[in-house]
Amino acid sequence: MLGYAFMGRAHSNAFLGLRHVAWPPPLLPRLVAIAGRDRALVAEAAVRYGYERWTTDWRELVSDPAIGLFDNGGPNSAHAEPTIEAARAGKHVVCEKPLGRDADEAFEIWRAVADAGVKHLCGFNFRFVPAVRLARELIEAGELGEIRHFRARYLQDWAESPALDTWRFRPAESGSGAIGDLASHAIDLGRFLVGEIESVSAIVKTFVEGREVDDAVEAVVEFSSGPVGTIEATRLALGRRNAMQWEINGSKGSLWFDMERLNELHVFRADGDRARGAKTVLVSEADHPFIDYWWPPGHIIGWGDTFLHELAYFLGAIAGRHEVAPYGATFEDGYRSSEVCDALVRSSQSKTREQISYRTLAG
Amino acid sequence: MLGYAFMGRAHSNAFLGLRHVAWPPPLLPRLVAIAGRDRALVAEAAVRYGYERWTTDWRELVSDPAIGLFDNGGPNSAHAEPTIEAARAGKHVVCEKPLGRDADEAFEIWRAVADAGVKHLCGFNFRFVPAVRLARELIEAGELGEIRHFRARYLQDWAESPALDTWRFRPAESGSGAIGDLASHAIDLGRFLVGEIESVSAIVKTFVEGREVDDAVEAVVEFSSGPVGTIEATRLALGRRNAMQWEINGSKGSLWFDMERLNELHVFRADGDRARGAKTVLVSEADHPFIDYWWPPGHIIGWGDTFLHELAYFLGAIAGRHEVAPYGATFEDGYRSSEVCDALVRSSQSKTREQISYRTLAG
Amino acid sequence: MLGYAFMGRAHSNAFLGLRHVAWPPPLLPRLVAIAGRDRALVAEAAVRYGYERWTTDWRELVSDPAIGLFDNGGPNSAHAEPTIEAARAGKHVVCEKPLGRDADEAFEIWRAVADAGVKHLCGFNFRFVPAVRLARELIEAGELGEIRHFRARYLQDWAESPALDTWRFRPAESGSGAIGDLASHAIDLGRFLVGEIESVSAIVKTFVEGREVDDAVEAVVEFSSGPVGTIEATRLALGRRNAMQWEINGSKGSLWFDMERLNELHVFRADGDRARGAKTVLVSEADHPFIDYWWPPGHIIGWGDTFLHELAYFLGAIAGRHEVAPYGATFEDGYRSSEVCDALVRSSQSKTREQISYRTLAG
Amino acid sequence: MLGYAFMGRAHSNAFLGLRHVAWPPPLLPRLVAIAGRDRALVAEAAVRYGYERWTTDWRELVSDPAIGLFDNGGPNSAHAEPTIEAARAGKHVVCEKPLGRDADEAFEIWRAVADAGVKHLCGFNFRFVPAVRLARELIEAGELGEIRHFRARYLQDWAESPALDTWRFRPAESGSGAIGDLASHAIDLGRFLVGEIESVSAIVKTFVEGREVDDAVEAVVEFSSGPVGTIEATRLALGRRNAMQWEINGSKGSLWFDMERLNELHVFRADGDRARGAKTVLVSEADHPFIDYWWPPGHIIGWGDTFLHELAYFLGAIAGRHEVAPYGATFEDGYRSSEVCDALVRSSQSKTREQISYRTLAG
Repeated sequence: MLGYAFMGRAHSNAFLGLRHVAWPPPLLPRLVAIAGRDRALVAEAAVRYGYERWTTDWRELVSDPAIGLFDNGGPNSAHAEPTIEAARAGKHVVCEKPLGRDADEAFEIWRAVADAGVKHLCGFNFRFVPAVRLARELIEAGELGEIRHFRARYLQDWAESPALDTWRFRPAESGSGAIGDLASHAIDLGRFLVGEIESVSAIVKTFVEGREVDDAVEAVVEFSSGPVGTIEATRLALGRRNAMQWEINGSKGSLWFDMERLNELHVFRADGDRARGAKTVLVSEADHPFIDYWWPPGHIIGWGDTFLHELAYFLGAIAGRHEVAPYGATFEDGYRSSEVCDALVRSSQSKTREQISYRTLAG
Repeated sequence: MLGYAFMGRAHSNAFLGLRHVAWPPPLLPRLVAIAGRDRALVAEAAVRYGYERWTTDWRELVSDPAIGLFDNGGPNSAHAEPTIEAARAGKHVVCEKPLGRDADEAFEIWRAVADAGVKHLCGFNFRFVPAVRLARELIEAGELGEIRHFRARYLQDWAESPALDTWRFRPAESGSGAIGDLASHAIDLGRFLVGEIESVSAIVKTFVEGREVDDAVEAVVEFSSGPVGTIEATRLALGRRNAMQWEINGSKGSLWFDMERLNELHVFRADGDRARGAKTVLVSEADHPFIDYWWPPGHIIGWGDTFLHELAYFLGAIAGRHEVAPYGATFEDGYRSSEVCDALVRSSQSKTREQISYRTLAG
Repeated sequence: MLGYAFMGRAHSNAFLGLRHVAWPPPLLPRLVAIAGRDRALVAEAAVRYGYERWTTDWRELVSDPAIGLFDNGGPNSAHAEPTIEAARAGKHVVCEKPLGRDADEAFEIWRAVADAGVKHLCGFNFRFVPAVRLARELIEAGELGEIRHFRARYLQDWAESPALDTWRFRPAESGSGAIGDLASHAIDLGRFLVGEIESVSAIVKTFVEGREVDDAVEAVVEFSSGPVGTIEATRLALGRRNAMQWEINGSKGSLWFDMERLNELHVFRADGDRARGAKTVLVSEADHPFIDYWWPPGHIIGWGDTFLHELAYFLGAIAGRHEVAPYGATFEDGYRSSEVCDALVRSSQSKTREQISYRTLAG
Repeated sequence: MLGYAFMGRAHSNAFLGLRHVAWPPPLLPRLVAIAGRDRALVAEAAVRYGYERWTTDWRELVSDPAIGLFDNGGPNSAHAEPTIEAARAGKHVVCEKPLGRDADEAFEIWRAVADAGVKHLCGFNFRFVPAVRLARELIEAGELGEIRHFRARYLQDWAESPALDTWRFRPAESGSGAIGDLASHAIDLGRFLVGEIESVSAIVKTFVEGREVDDAVEAVVEFSSGPVGTIEATRLALGRRNAMQWEINGSKGSLWFDMERLNELHVFRADGDRARGAKTVLVSEADHPFIDYWWPPGHIIGWGDTFLHELAYFLGAIAGRHEVAPYGATFEDGYRSSEVCDALVRSSQSKTREQISYRTLAG
């Protein structure tokens, strides 16, 4: 594990919880070592999360033959080199989103890791929200018909104060603000649920004086299969704590969702029923693919549980039970999301609709 | 009254209901005459709504000295000439939205009517939804601080069938599809609540084969005072019957609203209260300016009641109690909304962000 | 019309609105005369609502041969004599709920009016909320299976102040407090949707010092067909303005409802669908029996519109199109509701479960 | 740990998760041993949850000097003897609710354990739902004024099939059905938030043929401090998966809650604010006593997390940081809840309002 802060904690908790909630797990993880910058903090994290060793030098993890999976939960600027080196050392890799600080860096990570031949997962954990997975299955089953609209907003409200100072506000470390942090999730869900994004028309905005990264982005998007819609992200929507909201309209039905009520999916079907309305589905039923990790139906889960689903799925891929794609996000997904993020910035500057072209490994 | 269909019925019902719900009304309307194209239907409408006379020739209304107020609820292509002629004949005029089929036509109507010196109201009845009026008053009182975001969507779902054939689908009569019908409401609310719109980046889309007007529009908007956001409209959002939804975020609070629950306004204030959350305000309290038209608090009102508020307000303006602006939409508001509608179309074609310039009467 | 206050206004508005919203109405009402205690107020009401005459003596209405329908919207103590006299004079009668101040009085009204052979309607207007009517139709169609539970609460919050002084707080005029005013609605809906009530176990409570009528009642109820549940009413539930909430659980599905969102019905069906959840039905679709009185789907209605539905239905019964029962409440329904109200009071005093026996006209 | 099924899993998961989510924990639990009836299942559970040893004889746990805390998650019939024996052996004890199968048994457990002088916690984990704790703090701070009403319903829908056969349907093992399983939670919350229950008037009902325990209970309750209300529980409310809903009305405000949206508390205050409405509070803010166990604000938690809060709190009590009461439920609370449960049964049989008298240890 690289990183002991927010994501380091979330991932460690998931690795440890796996055996308690699902049995047998696909693989039984052994927590070999954790790396981090601050000696005291990483030492404490090792005790707390149950890692056998700790280090302030991530290269020790890369060279450790006992380690088979390298999980990168560090700041964005620490994604590329450690992840690539770990893959070259033959370790499977998890890397938090955004994969790179821009599309070029993300592409390089993907290319190097793919060349190394290991399994890779980019941390778009919202794919592992039960309601999102159910949405994907309903769409795959054709229940929405032809898709016409995708609208997504990721609204948070913690960034008002100009005094805030973390790596998330330093361009060299983060690459961008709300774009890489929040819009990237909305982009990945659009790609996961609807398809590839072809163009964007965007305005990127910094409201807080002196801030060097963006606070908000507003965009119109066009999908290559025809649907149009919007992607929005802001850290300045007071009253919206963690509101990743999306809506999809098709020719036979619609779906909508709000991360602040993540146990619920709203499902409308044009089925001619006289009691015509949208269902509020409490997504915790026995036929759901994540049911092993849950309590009985109706006993709702929390945000942290998405990491259990995600990492269990990745362990299943390592164990050869299934591929990472399509339900997990690969580094290719990480790269493609970054291409859209870059296009948002370009469109805001050029004031034109930006077409997006995606690089492939062969090319 | 010109028109006996949807809007003709809504306005007539409001004129008749005024005396029953508010007493004394600002002016006591006398329903002199109604005009429409179909002889049998307009004759029946006259009996039903209580008009003294009927005609198939709107010019008879214009020349009738008994008529002091001309209300135009006809199709968009019947807005310009009758409205202008009525104003020139010295009658106060109400005209449904969109004022013209494009900005040029809207400007001509505004100019001619303003020259005539009569009072004018453009039918943006959403300004007269109690929650919208409360929102305006909260914003005017500074409760939201500096505004950062305005997001509005007007979603309906009745236009799936290619067989649908009304004037609303004929470009010569309607001018546009979802843009003039739905987006214009969102634009007017943005202007009413936040301020003037400076630029738009849009995609306009027709999904249904053979249809000659737009089904949907997706746009990023920029306000001249700084806020950014989105305006969306579609007639193809299954499960959304009449969902005019908007959200405003400011530096001190946020508001959001859904027309399908029009009695409610959601209010978030960053007031340091430990029980931090958004209020769901049932907008029917005794201190509301529309209270005269209501039942006791909690006894909710319907969509049709907005016309009572609107027309009572206009009668009050005619009676000299107040101006039409700022709470009612004048023809200048109707024209300005049309400029934004036109910019949506231009932006979709040019694939660039379109700046909007507004004509003034002097210029 | 007897009464010009809250109910007088609601009924008059409905009589006048009928022709504007539905055409042709079953009968075209002519507003002959209105009676009330205060000379100035009743005179003004006559002008405002369009009555041809006014009087301070209700006996003039009874003896007026031009009047075919007598509508009693006066205080509870003014229900019996005028209603009975009007019926004896051959007029059809509407009387607001509760029919009598207790079951004996209600029975006498019913008996006398039935003897007179005229049509009678007791003003349980909640039967004419579209969602309630849809609920009844779904239950009749067997969609809920065998009913197990009925739970209803009518919560308001306007009666905190000890200084309040209207006839509603004077036992001689009102008979009871929250029981006759609010619980009677819940009782009628239980009877309308589920069946006859067999027993109650209740606590009746007055919280406000010096008040002579009840503020609240809490009761367990048993239906003769097997279901059990609760009926609650209070005027002291802060934050609940007009929250008549009910829920019904059956062996195949459930329904729930809140009067503060009266356009919505929540429908759960155990239909094996993977997307298992309760629908929120926006009750304004084209197949609803009240559609003639509405705007297009999604354009929601208000509390006042229930009177349009109710009085149009009664006019249809007078016109011979259908019976008052089962969709409208007859005076028998008014009487039976009063029997349950009386049992609530008895049970609170006896501290035992009170069985209810209903008188019949033959007996 | 006694028991490896539903509650055994929930508690074990919490003990293990403690160190990962809060650091340092009040005490660092060591998972010594787990007992259960089925040899194969308990052996597997030991590996899965990380217990050092396992046994099919709970007496081995009682006699094991390495064990300082005995957690009883077994069926109701296995509560009394093991819990008492463990306490007599000097171990602190946790016992799931209901403490006993009836009030007599619960009293005996309480008495014996209190005599042993160890710390005791009864598993009313809903006290450790963040929203419930916030509600308690708001009420303690006087924000609701004088309480008038408490209404609680615990609705589930899994017990329709007559073929269901677990210990929960066998009277000798469970004591009762929905009463001990669900109503006991509602009773404990009433006591936790409002005060002692003085009387009940109830109907207990079994709908499913051949079932030997109750499916549902409906009751009116009276609190000794004056409030009145209802307590309901059923396993036959289709569409309600785990809906523990409650509402409290006071002279200055109201609160309401639904366990299916457990991250939210609805707060109404009569504060004269023009934007009068109930707040929906997303209970995950930094000033909450459980914040150590959470992710950042807005990243919602699940049902399982309540056990983390509960057991961490009990470890804090063992560590001497605070008492178990008033925020945790002691065995006295477990006993008192059982007295109310018994009164529900008696009232249903006697058809009278049952006064409740509580035994004390001295008596």
